[in-house]
Amino acid sequence: MTERTEFRLTVSCPDQMGIVARVARLIADAQGWITEAAQHTDTEARWFFMRWVFSLPQGGDADLAHRFEALAGELNMQWSLTRADARPRVVIMVSKEPHCLTDVLARWKSGELPMEIPAIVSNHRLLEEIAACYGIPFEHIPVTAETRDEAFLRLQQRLRALEAETVVLARYMQILPPTLCTEFEQRVINIHHSFLPSFVGARPYHQAFARGVKLIGATCHYVTEDLDAGPIIEQDVVRIRHDDQVADLVRKGRDVERWVLARGLRYHLEGRVLTHGNKTIVFD
Amino acid sequence: MTERTEFRLTVSCPDQMGIVARVARLIADAQGWITEAAQHTDTEARWFFMRWVFSLPQGGDADLAHRFEALAGELNMQWSLTRADARPRVVIMVSKEPHCLTDVLARWKSGELPMEIPAIVSNHRLLEEIAACYGIPFEHIPVTAETRDEAFLRLQQRLRALEAETVVLARYMQILPPTLCTEFEQRVINIHHSFLPSFVGARPYHQAFARGVKLIGATCHYVTEDLDAGPIIEQDVVRIRHDDQVADLVRKGRDVERWVLARGLRYHLEGRVLTHGNKTIVFD
Amino acid sequence: MTERTEFRLTVSCPDQMGIVARVARLIADAQGWITEAAQHTDTEARWFFMRWVFSLPQGGDADLAHRFEALAGELNMQWSLTRADARPRVVIMVSKEPHCLTDVLARWKSGELPMEIPAIVSNHRLLEEIAACYGIPFEHIPVTAETRDEAFLRLQQRLRALEAETVVLARYMQILPPTLCTEFEQRVINIHHSFLPSFVGARPYHQAFARGVKLIGATCHYVTEDLDAGPIIEQDVVRIRHDDQVADLVRKGRDVERWVLARGLRYHLEGRVLTHGNKTIVFD
Amino acid sequence: MTERTEFRLTVSCPDQMGIVARVARLIADAQGWITEAAQHTDTEARWFFMRWVFSLPQGGDADLAHRFEALAGELNMQWSLTRADARPRVVIMVSKEPHCLTDVLARWKSGELPMEIPAIVSNHRLLEEIAACYGIPFEHIPVTAETRDEAFLRLQQRLRALEAETVVLARYMQILPPTLCTEFEQRVINIHHSFLPSFVGARPYHQAFARGVKLIGATCHYVTEDLDAGPIIEQDVVRIRHDDQVADLVRKGRDVERWVLARGLRYHLEGRVLTHGNKTIVFD
Repeated sequence: MTERTEFRLTVSCPDQMGIVARVARLIADAQGWITEAAQHTDTEARWFFMRWVFSLPQGGDADLAHRFEALAGELNMQWSLTRADARPRVVIMVSKEPHCLTDVLARWKSGELPMEIPAIVSNHRLLEEIAACYGIPFEHIPVTAETRDEAFLRLQQRLRALEAETVVLARYMQILPPTLCTEFEQRVINIHHSFLPSFVGARPYHQAFARGVKLIGATCHYVTEDLDAGPIIEQDVVRIRHDDQVADLVRKGRDVERWVLARGLRYHLEGRVLTHGNKTIVFD
Repeated sequence: MTERTEFRLTVSCPDQMGIVARVARLIADAQGWITEAAQHTDTEARWFFMRWVFSLPQGGDADLAHRFEALAGELNMQWSLTRADARPRVVIMVSKEPHCLTDVLARWKSGELPMEIPAIVSNHRLLEEIAACYGIPFEHIPVTAETRDEAFLRLQQRLRALEAETVVLARYMQILPPTLCTEFEQRVINIHHSFLPSFVGARPYHQAFARGVKLIGATCHYVTEDLDAGPIIEQDVVRIRHDDQVADLVRKGRDVERWVLARGLRYHLEGRVLTHGNKTIVFD
Repeated sequence: MTERTEFRLTVSCPDQMGIVARVARLIADAQGWITEAAQHTDTEARWFFMRWVFSLPQGGDADLAHRFEALAGELNMQWSLTRADARPRVVIMVSKEPHCLTDVLARWKSGELPMEIPAIVSNHRLLEEIAACYGIPFEHIPVTAETRDEAFLRLQQRLRALEAETVVLARYMQILPPTLCTEFEQRVINIHHSFLPSFVGARPYHQAFARGVKLIGATCHYVTEDLDAGPIIEQDVVRIRHDDQVADLVRKGRDVERWVLARGLRYHLEGRVLTHGNKTIVFD
Repeated sequence: MTERTEFRLTVSCPDQMGIVARVARLIADAQGWITEAAQHTDTEARWFFMRWVFSLPQGGDADLAHRFEALAGELNMQWSLTRADARPRVVIMVSKEPHCLTDVLARWKSGELPMEIPAIVSNHRLLEEIAACYGIPFEHIPVTAETRDEAFLRLQQRLRALEAETVVLARYMQILPPTLCTEFEQRVINIHHSFLPSFVGARPYHQAFARGVKLIGATCHYVTEDLDAGPIIEQDVVRIRHDDQVADLVRKGRDVERWVLARGLRYHLEGRVLTHGNKTIVFD
């Protein structure tokens, strides 16, 4: 048997009859063997979404992409065809809290998160040692009230220079400027330490404690210009009790932040997340 | 061995040194045998809470209550001493949705919810048959925009006449007037079909769908004059997916509403819920 | 636009290249509009599974079925094409415990479980009233050690006469004879009150209590000749604590039994469960 | 106000009337201020358990311990009085899998796990770098079929020399000899990668995959001579799906192993775990 390579195709387009047949036909003609397939039709929005994984004979992708181009034009598709073993370049941004960073790094090292990490960028030096342990370059870009604009300009330049495809705010705690959000639209992933839309903004654990909720949560979402209001990728919660103080919420919350970021990031890296308006389709 | 009866003591008071020793001494002197004990100290508010269950020899409670009265005065306690097998009178209020009602009734019949149900009250006749199946009187008090005040006055009178100790709003869908909330303070339990404080008010499943959250929830809380803002007794969530439409959220949500109401109501009936400010201590 | 009807196609066959394209082509040719599609390839077993829902123009299913027959022969498929609004005939079997029965009936009445219930069959008369409340015929087939063979023969005859397509053992507590298991293969659904494979057989809550586990569970599975060893459809667990006695496990377990049976049964009724060997594929 | 120190008292004894009053009296006499209190009465075994945390004036513990000694003799108590800020010496044993180790170390560094780690011991050298990152001595004690007895003798000597109070098997993958289990009874904590009692022994994820369960779990337990049969401290599960292969079970399972070990270990370190027979009381 000839060598085969796995590819991942994602498609998003207005729904109509026969899409699956036409896409399947192209792939079959290219000698594609489908190993994973997920579709979704939003019957209200009349929109169609799919994510297929299939193997192709050596070199078959160029021709398939070419033929797909034509179909995509006809059906008004947004689409991407990627090698299934692609490892996007991900810059991780942190502040002082290590728990999300160490968790992401441990998962990355175990092979669970398919990515390259060209750099860890922080507005503090506190987590530099962790980066060193994993052999990853650490860049310090301090942000103060006065230097804010300049700092973010420099950040934007560094992200370009690092060829960042995705940016992860692993408890970065700074609000990114709109230009950065726009340039990296749907490529900046944040972990917010509340179950959104509850407790937007600062000190969500304090807010949760004051309200007396019985579960606390975390939300992984794409960053948009509106604070904590972008498309939600993943959420989860953990039970708290009347004897949990704010410090306990922080402790229990760290766990939820870790799972939610790890799952959301993996979905993103594996091309499992499509967006439509302010919502996500997650082919988990 | 002489016959013994189980009692339940709940206490809430400013914290100070030696409370447990003094309460335990009184109970020991009364030949009380403790079988369940839970305490909580809110170190910020400097407040102490406890719930103890113990057996006393025949007739021992009157004397204990008398002696406890003195201690309670000295320590500025709010307290109650109740037979552990007490079955409060609970009026259930419903509208058109049967799922919470049937669930509560099935649990009540199985012995899981220690209560009497003198009546089911509704602004519609739709669920009358279910009441009949369980042999419970059904009262129809229609509520329209014009008759609202009159209807709630009649409701208040009926609740008094029925000697209701607790009122359960099992998806009643009407906002109670302040006088009723005040008269039955911390005795009206509502089930709200969202994970509060998210999605207050009407059509929370539609709100959740529009926001694109990944989990939906339900909240069981005491009713206060502020809509959906009373002390939270219990909450839970269930995972939803991108292919869940509003109707699926309603279906999945029904399950969460049932568990949350059933647990919250049981905690309340068994005297496991103490309140402090707008928060609850739940000795589950 | 002409009237259209929704159909559900399930397929299970050896995996090979091009299956999706060929099936999609047939459906497209029949003017089918796909609204739901789920596939799975078991790469180890080299087996392919799919469940698609699509609408067809009036009368289009006969022709599609005819053409599909040919494809199925060629690809060695097990398949079924069913109206998406089909309501299978389900006989519910119970013993003395009402909780699963009342839950299934409430869900059925709310429209959550698409089925007809021609009869509730029991070896006791205890739950007859519940059947009456829902207007469903109740049949009493007592089972004793002496009459066991005769009773099950009569049961088998009744299931045939009732044209039962599915049989639900809603805590029936009797072991069905092999002939019945064979005749109704993959159509008898049991709820076992443990997280299988732990605690097979009698009194699983007592076994769980004795072992000191921290979670208890329930398992919904197809009944085979081997006790509690058939293909698992759905499972779930609930947390227990050191102060939970066996009676508490029974109480908490009732909830898990209800969810697990309700979910498992719905998956089955909606054609979401395919089996392969002793395992299930559940397109939930 | 004079300086005060927090202490933790745990008690386990045959149940009788008045225990709480007598203990509370001693503590009150010692000017103890209770901040946390949890009790449990096993009414079947007629056994009483408690864990109280209270502050004492400077130097008050020696006298309290002395007076408690007398009471404990009278009531046949097993008890311990420990500083609440005690940090036991914990040796962590690992093999090749890093995920439990890195998780425990990150939590330890964040202050979540109150312990000292005098050494990480392994039968391989693979995780030596991780130990170095956290500045913890790494000891390599290889174990082969031939050197097994000798290796474990050396291990036992090292544990003594290191003054290990607790030993954590963080996926150590070797069965400890009985003498070691006995010497460190209820002080060796293992994480087993299944929901016990299901899937005892080797390759539990493969066993779970073969059986087709819908949830996989992990169990944290005290090690006894009987493999995977000691008192269970904590358990949890995670949902799996038909498209999860063994590798996915391993990946999802790693998360459960981490939470379960982290919670179980914290309970142990904070003196929240009492045992009775083969079961635990966990005052979480």
